[in-house]
Amino acid sequence: MDIKHYMNVVGQAARKASRAIARADTNQKNKALLAIADAIERDLERLVAANMVDLENARQNGLEEALIDRLTLSEKTVRGMAEGLRQIAALPDPVGEMDDFTYRPSGIQLGKMRVPLGVVGIIYEARPNVTADAAGLCLKSGNAVILRGGSEAFNSNQAIAACVHEGLRVADLPLHAVQVLETTDRAAVGELITMSEFVDVIVPRGGKGLIERISREARVPVIKHLDGNCHVYIDDTANPDKAFNIALNAKTHRYGTCNTMETLLVHTAFAEFILPRLAAAYWEKGVELRGCERTQGILGDKVVAATEADWETEYLAPVLAIKVVGGIDDAIEHINHYGSHHTDAIVTDDYGRARRFLREVDSASVMVNASTRFADGFEYGLGAEIGISTDKIHARGPVGLHGLTSQKWIVLGDGQIRQ
Amino acid sequence: MDIKHYMNVVGQAARKASRAIARADTNQKNKALLAIADAIERDLERLVAANMVDLENARQNGLEEALIDRLTLSEKTVRGMAEGLRQIAALPDPVGEMDDFTYRPSGIQLGKMRVPLGVVGIIYEARPNVTADAAGLCLKSGNAVILRGGSEAFNSNQAIAACVHEGLRVADLPLHAVQVLETTDRAAVGELITMSEFVDVIVPRGGKGLIERISREARVPVIKHLDGNCHVYIDDTANPDKAFNIALNAKTHRYGTCNTMETLLVHTAFAEFILPRLAAAYWEKGVELRGCERTQGILGDKVVAATEADWETEYLAPVLAIKVVGGIDDAIEHINHYGSHHTDAIVTDDYGRARRFLREVDSASVMVNASTRFADGFEYGLGAEIGISTDKIHARGPVGLHGLTSQKWIVLGDGQIRQ
Repeated sequence: MDIKHYMNVVGQAARKASRAIARADTNQKNKALLAIADAIERDLERLVAANMVDLENARQNGLEEALIDRLTLSEKTVRGMAEGLRQIAALPDPVGEMDDFTYRPSGIQLGKMRVPLGVVGIIYEARPNVTADAAGLCLKSGNAVILRGGSEAFNSNQAIAACVHEGLRVADLPLHAVQVLETTDRAAVGELITMSEFVDVIVPRGGKGLIERISREARVPVIKHLDGNCHVYIDDTANPDKAFNIALNAKTHRYGTCNTMETLLVHTAFAEFILPRLAAAYWEKGVELRGCERTQGILGDKVVAATEADWETEYLAPVLAIKVVGGIDDAIEHINHYGSHHTDAIVTDDYGRARRFLREVDSASVMVNASTRFADGFEYGLGAEIGISTDKIHARGPVGLHGLTSQKWIVLGDGQIRQ
Repeated sequence: MDIKHYMNVVGQAARKASRAIARADTNQKNKALLAIADAIERDLERLVAANMVDLENARQNGLEEALIDRLTLSEKTVRGMAEGLRQIAALPDPVGEMDDFTYRPSGIQLGKMRVPLGVVGIIYEARPNVTADAAGLCLKSGNAVILRGGSEAFNSNQAIAACVHEGLRVADLPLHAVQVLETTDRAAVGELITMSEFVDVIVPRGGKGLIERISREARVPVIKHLDGNCHVYIDDTANPDKAFNIALNAKTHRYGTCNTMETLLVHTAFAEFILPRLAAAYWEKGVELRGCERTQGILGDKVVAATEADWETEYLAPVLAIKVVGGIDDAIEHINHYGSHHTDAIVTDDYGRARRFLREVDSASVMVNASTRFADGFEYGLGAEIGISTDKIHARGPVGLHGLTSQKWIVLGDGQIRQ
C-alpha cells in the first residue's frame, strides 16, 4: 500500500465530507447518532467477537495486562458506547449558535456564529470505545473525522466503523464523514499530522511519549493533554470534614486518572490537626506518603522524604506527596510552579482566599471545596469528551462539542461601505 | 552576545512578569496605558528623531519605498499610537469575566473564567506603531509580551519601549511585562518560537514567507494570517446600487489591505445588467480586469482572460478577477475552494440565500450587504488588533483582547466528592 497516496485520498474525501456534515441539520445528525447506537447494540455479539480476535493477538504478542484491560470490549462497554451516542444526540447542537450581536457606529451589525473546525484527526491507543465516542462528538459538532486507532484494536475498530457507517447511511450523510484508517502502518500517522490542507486539528490520546512526539512533528494544530499533576490545598479556614473527604476522594477514588490529586498542600496552622487523621485513612487504603520535613515531623518515619522530583510527578498510582505551606501565597506559588495546569482545588471557608485561588491558579480547572475528580467531560455535562486539553489556546480542560468548534464573525449590513 | 542565554533570561523574566500582570487590576492596567500614551505624546520629537535614524539607515541600505513608508513615524502616526492606547484603556477588561454558570447534577456549580494566555511573542516587520499597539493589547489582556520588531525599525522600537516602560513604572507594574528585544540577531526568533516553557503563543506579522517559515519551525502555537483572497458575490436579487457601491468599495477603497476583494462573482442573470456599469467605474480608477469567458463576452477584449491562478491570487493591487456564476451554489463552492477563508460577502435581498451564505461560507468573516473592508479590529470595535487570524482554532478573523485570552473552568462546591 502506498501510504502517502492512501492518506491523500482519505484526506480529500474527509475535506469533501466535512462540507456536507457542516451543513447537515440537527435532526439529520441525531438520526445518524441514534442509528449508530442501535446498530452497535444490535451487533453486540459481532463486536465482542471481533474484539476477541484482537485480544487473542494481544495475548500472543505478550501485551501487558493493563493494556489488555483497556482493549477489552465487554457487553457493558458496548452498551456504554451506545448510551454515550444517545447522550450526544440529546445535547444541544453547537453548530450555527449565534451570539454577541451589536451595532457598530458604521451601521453594520456584528456578531458571531459557531462553526465546525472542519476535519479532525484523532490518534489513539487501545480503547476501541474511543472510536464510537469520537465519531459521535465529531458528527454532532459538524466535523469530519479521521480515526487512527492502535494496531492492537484493529478488528474491534473496524467492526465499530461498520456500525458508524450504517448510521451515516440511514441519515443520508456521507460515509467519509467518519473514516477509520484501514492501515496500521505508522507512516500513516506521519501523513495525518502534516497534511494541513486536509486536516484542521489533531487530537492525540495516549501516553505522554506519543503525544510529545506528535506535537513535535505535527504541522497541523494539536489539542493535547500532557500531565495531570493535580493539587488540593487545605487552608487553615477549611471545614475539617470537607477537607478530609475531598483530600481522600481526590487521591483514592481512582489512582490512574489524570484528575487524581498527586500533591496535597496543607496550611501550616492546620497541618497538625488534619494530617494525622488523613494519613491514617491513606495508609488504610495502602497509599504511600512522601512528605516535606514538616510533614515528616508530624507523621513520623513512615513518611518517605519527598524530593524535588516528587513535586513534579504524576504518579498515577497509590502514592501521594504532601507539603506543609505557609498559606495561600505559598500554595498558589507551588501549584503554578510545579503543577501541570490541569486541575487544582482549594478547601477553604474564607471568601477572599477562594476568590484569589480561582483567579490566580493558572489551571484548566480551578475548584473551591470540590474534589479534583470532577474534572471530566461527563461531570461537566459535555457528554463524552474528545480529550482533556492542557494547552492554553483554543480549549482548556475537558474538550466536548464546543471545543470541536470555532466562531466566525458575521456582519449584517444594508449596503454599508467603508468611508 | 550569547543569544540562547539572552533569550532564556528574557523568557524567564517574561514568565515571571506574566503572573504579576495577570493579577493586576483594571485600574492599574489602565493607569499604565494612559501613562504610556502621555509619554509617547510628550516624547513625540524624540520618537521622530529616533525614527529618522532608522529611515536614514533604510535609505542607505536601499530599502524599497513601500517599506520606508511603513517604517515612517510621522506626528500623525505617533498621535495615533497614543490615541490607540487610550482606546484600549477605555475597553472593558476581559480578564476575570465569568459566565455560563450552571449547577450540575452532582451539586457542583460549573462556569468559566476568562484568563490571559500568559506570555505572547510577537514578530513583526517595519511598522514601529505595532510596538505600542501590541504592548497595549497584551497589557490590557493581562499578558506579558516579548516583541521582536524588524531590524530596520530598531531605534524607533527602542524609543517606544522607553515610553512603555515609563508607563509600567508609573503603574507599579513589572517592566518585564513588555520586553522589546535588544538584538536584531535572527537566531533570537528561532529561540523565541521554540521556547515553549516561556512562551504560550506566537503572533507573526509580516509577509507570507516570514509567516510560513515561523509556522513551520515553531514549537509554540502560532496565531497566523496568511492570504486575504476575499470575494464579493452579487446575487441576481441584489439591490443594484448596493451591489455597485459594495463591489466598488471592496476593491478600490484600498488596494494593499488583506480585506480587499480580489475576485468578484456575479450571478449569471445579473451580469449583463451590472457588469458594464461596474467595469466602467473600475477602469476609471485604473483597475485591471481579468475575467472568465462570459465576463469577456459581456465586457469585451479589454478584459484579460483569467486563468486558474487568478482565482487563487491575492493581488494586493489594482487588479480584479471576475467570474460569472450560475448562482449561490456555484458562488459558495468557488469561495470555499479558491478563497483563503478570510472575508467574503454576498449582496442579496433574498432572505434564504443570505442565511445559506452566512452558514456555508467557511471564512473568518462572512458578510451580507456590506463591504469586505469592514473586517478589521477597529471597525469590529476591538480597539487595535494584534493581527487577523486565518486559522480555524482559537481565534478567527481580527484578534483583539479576547483573542489574547482563554477560558478556564471554575467549579464552586460545598464539599462535593465524586461518587
